[in-house]
Amino acid sequence: MENFTLKLQSEDKRPLYEQLYRHIIGEIEAGRLKNGERLPSKRALCAHLSVSQSTVETAYGMLTAEGYLRAKPKSGYYVSADLYRPVTGQSAPRTERPAPVKTAPRYDFSTGAVDTGVFPYASWARLSREVVSGNPQLLQRGEAQGDPAFRQALAEFLREYRGVRCEADQIVVGAGLEYLLNVLVQVLPEESVYGLEDPGYQAAWQVLRNHGRQIRMIPLDDSGLREDKLRESGATVAFVTPSHQFPMGSTMPVGRRAALLAWAREADDRFIVEDDYDSEFCYLSRPIPAMQSLDDGEKVIYVGTFSRSIAPSIRVAYLVLPRRLLPVYEQRLGFAASTVSRFEQQTLAAFVSRGFYARHLRRAANLYRKKQQLLLEELEKIPGAKVSGAQAGLHFLLTLPGREEGWLTERAAKAGVPVRGLSAYCRACPCPESTLVLGFAGLKLEEIPEAAKALREAFEA
Amino acid sequence: MENFTLKLQSEDKRPLYEQLYRHIIGEIEAGRLKNGERLPSKRALCAHLSVSQSTVETAYGMLTAEGYLRAKPKSGYYVSADLYRPVTGQSAPRTERPAPVKTAPRYDFSTGAVDTGVFPYASWARLSREVVSGNPQLLQRGEAQGDPAFRQALAEFLREYRGVRCEADQIVVGAGLEYLLNVLVQVLPEESVYGLEDPGYQAAWQVLRNHGRQIRMIPLDDSGLREDKLRESGATVAFVTPSHQFPMGSTMPVGRRAALLAWAREADDRFIVEDDYDSEFCYLSRPIPAMQSLDDGEKVIYVGTFSRSIAPSIRVAYLVLPRRLLPVYEQRLGFAASTVSRFEQQTLAAFVSRGFYARHLRRAANLYRKKQQLLLEELEKIPGAKVSGAQAGLHFLLTLPGREEGWLTERAAKAGVPVRGLSAYCRACPCPESTLVLGFAGLKLEEIPEAAKALREAFEA
Repeated sequence: MENFTLKLQSEDKRPLYEQLYRHIIGEIEAGRLKNGERLPSKRALCAHLSVSQSTVETAYGMLTAEGYLRAKPKSGYYVSADLYRPVTGQSAPRTERPAPVKTAPRYDFSTGAVDTGVFPYASWARLSREVVSGNPQLLQRGEAQGDPAFRQALAEFLREYRGVRCEADQIVVGAGLEYLLNVLVQVLPEESVYGLEDPGYQAAWQVLRNHGRQIRMIPLDDSGLREDKLRESGATVAFVTPSHQFPMGSTMPVGRRAALLAWAREADDRFIVEDDYDSEFCYLSRPIPAMQSLDDGEKVIYVGTFSRSIAPSIRVAYLVLPRRLLPVYEQRLGFAASTVSRFEQQTLAAFVSRGFYARHLRRAANLYRKKQQLLLEELEKIPGAKVSGAQAGLHFLLTLPGREEGWLTERAAKAGVPVRGLSAYCRACPCPESTLVLGFAGLKLEEIPEAAKALREAFEA
Repeated sequence: MENFTLKLQSEDKRPLYEQLYRHIIGEIEAGRLKNGERLPSKRALCAHLSVSQSTVETAYGMLTAEGYLRAKPKSGYYVSADLYRPVTGQSAPRTERPAPVKTAPRYDFSTGAVDTGVFPYASWARLSREVVSGNPQLLQRGEAQGDPAFRQALAEFLREYRGVRCEADQIVVGAGLEYLLNVLVQVLPEESVYGLEDPGYQAAWQVLRNHGRQIRMIPLDDSGLREDKLRESGATVAFVTPSHQFPMGSTMPVGRRAALLAWAREADDRFIVEDDYDSEFCYLSRPIPAMQSLDDGEKVIYVGTFSRSIAPSIRVAYLVLPRRLLPVYEQRLGFAASTVSRFEQQTLAAFVSRGFYARHLRRAANLYRKKQQLLLEELEKIPGAKVSGAQAGLHFLLTLPGREEGWLTERAAKAGVPVRGLSAYCRACPCPESTLVLGFAGLKLEEIPEAAKALREAFEA
C-alpha cells in the first residue's frame, strides 16, 4: 500500500477512476510497480484512498482489459508488465556501469533464432553484386511504399503461395514488422480499439501502448481468437496470427476465419490485421491460404516478414493494405522515403522473382521439420510431457503437468538451457499452466539430442 | 462557405472552438479544403455558424500556430497543407488507374538528390563482401539500438568531426530520419509541445501531426529559430537545423545556440532536437561543431543521417540521446529489433572506422563545391538575382525580386527544369517572396552551364 501515496484531486477535471488508472500506469512504467507484484485488494484501496468501490473497480477493470494487470481468481490483481526480451540475453547495456557478464546458453531454445547454415549465401551475394554494380540510380531516393519491382515480385509471390489477392500498389515495404505496426497505427482511425490475442505477440501490445491506443486483451480457444469475446470487448481492429498462433501454435480453422470476417463486415471501421506468422513452414498438410484470400479486399490488412523465413537481421517486412486505406496512407505517410535500403529491396526482388526464395523455403522447411522431429522424439521421453502447436512453424509448446512454470524455467536456466515460460506471453487472460515455449530453429541438427537431454535432465527432480 | 456545413453541437462536451478546429482539420485531411484555398473571414464565419467572434478567432489561431493555416495580412487565412513531395515526381501511382505519364526533368534541381558518381562503389562492395561472407551470426537478431561495433564507430566519428559528446550506448541507429522522429515522439513526454522552424523541414511537421502531437510554428531570422518567439509559443521541444537551416541556408551563430540552450535549461521538460543537416558539406570556413557539444549532455538530442552524405537510398540515420532519456527508450522501445539490416550496419561500421567515410566526404565536398561555384557564376548573370544560404550544404536560395514565386516555378516547369518555391516549406509565418530553393547535388558537373542557362532563359520574360 505504500506505493499508493496518490492524492486523488477533486479539482482535477478527470474522473477519479481515470486519475487512479493513470497513476497505476505511471507507477508501472516508472518501474515502481514491478512485474508479478500484487496490488492492494479493491476493498483495502477504497478505504485507503477514501473513494467508492466502483472507482477502484473501474480502474482495475480498465487496467486488466488493457493488459497492465492480470486478475487471478481468489487471489487478486497482479502487475503484468513484463516485455518480450530475447531469452539469450543479447540486450545492450544501457548504463555506464559495465554490463553483467552473461554466459551464452549451452543450447539456444529461443523463438527468435534461425538456422544460419541454410541461408543461400552464394546466390544472395551474387544477386547483391549484380544489383549494386549495375544501378547507380538506386542511390537516389525511392518511393515511400518501396521499389515497384520489389512490390511486384512480392505481389506475385503472395498470390501464388498464400492466395493473397493484391496488386503491387497495395503493398507497403518497411523495416520490420514492428515498424509496419507503427505505420498501421497512423493509418487506422485514432479512436480504433485494438483486440489482441492473449497469450500473444508482446511487441504489438507495446507498439500500441507507445502510441496511446486503446487495447483489449482477447482470450483464445483451440481455434484461436474467440469471436464471442472479441464482440464483447468493443474492439474495432482484431490482430490475429491464423497460420500458427504465437505462441500457442494453433492454426485457425476456416470456420473461425469466416466468423471473424463476418464480425469485421458488420461495421465500416472494423479491420482484421492478419500477421501471417510462420506460414512459410507447414509440416503436416497442405498450407491453408491466408485469411486475406477469403476477404473481398476490404477488411483484412495482411502483414508478413522475411525475419523468420530468411533471417531476423534482414529488416524487411510488408503490409498489404485494403484499397480503401491507400488514400489515407498516401496522405499521412506518402511523404517519407521507404525504410528499407533500395539495394536490399532490389536484391530481394531478384531473389523472390527468380525462384531462389521458394527454393530456399523448401530447403529450410525440410531442415526445420527434421530438427523438430528429432527434438520431439527426445522430449517425449520425459514422463507426462505433452507437446502442442507443432504442426507448423519454428516453435512448439511443452507442457509438464503438475510442475510449476517458475520451477521449470529456473531449473532449465541453471542447467544452461534457458527457456521461456508461456506466462511471458500472457497478460490479462488466464494462462495455461506448466507450459514452456520452445524454439528450435537456432539449434544445430547434430546438437539436438544433447540439447534435449540437457533439458530432460534439468526437469528430473 | 459551402464547406462549412458543420453543425456545432451544444450537447457535444467539447468547447465550440475545439469542434470548429477539429472540423477544419478533418476537411483539410479529407482534401475538401485544398492547399492555398482561402477560408471564410472570421466575421462571415461567426455569422454563418452563429457563434461568437472569439470562438472563430481561437480556432483560427490554433490552426495557424500549428501550421494548418497561414494568415496573410489584410487578406485572410489560407490552407497550408501541402506536403513535401519529390519535385522530380518519383512518387508512386496509388490507384488502379494508370499513372499520368511524367516527363523526366531536363535537369534535376531537387534538394533530395545526390551525385551517384562520387560513391566509392569498389570499397563499399569489398567491405560488404567481407562482412557478409565472414559472419553468419549477423543473420541473428541484433540489438534494438543497433550493432555495438557500428555505434562505437559512429560515436568516435561524431566526437572527432562534430565535437559531439557521446558514448556508443547513447546512440540509436534507425532506418532514416523520419523513422527516428517516430522514435523520439515515443520517448519524449506525450504532452510535449514541439516548436518547429518555419520555413522548415515539412516531414517533421507531418510525423508530429500523425502522432497527434502539439505543434507551434516558430519564425526565423538571419540567425535561425527566434528564441523570443520560441518562448512566447509555449513550446517545450525545439527542432533546429543549426549547421545549415533547411531551407533558408543560414548557419546558427554561437550566440543563438547559447540562447536556445539557456531556454532549454530553464525547465526540466525542455529539449532541443538538433538535426545536424548538411554539416558534412561546409564550404567557406572551418565547420562549427554541433550544438550538442555546448550542452552538458542533458538537453540536446542530436540527429544525423547518411542520406545526404552517402545516398538517400542508404536508409541509415542515428540519434544521440541524453543519458537521462535512455531508461524510457529502453522501457518503451528496447523490445524491438533495429530497423537497419545488420549487414549494412557492419559494412558502414567498417566504412566509418577505417577512414573510408571521411575520405569520401572530402571528395564529395570538393565536387559539390565545384558544382555550386559553377552554378552560382551562371545564375548571377540573371539581372537582380540574389543568392543566399550558399556557405554550406547541397542547396541554396535564389531570389528574383519583383517576380511572383508562382510565375517563376511555372516558367521553370514549362522549360523542363522544375524547381520548388520557398513557400512549399512555409506554414504559418510570413514567407519571403520571389524565392526559389535550388538543389544542385543531382546535376552533373558538365551539365551545369546548360542547366543554369535553361533556368535563366525561363525567367526572361
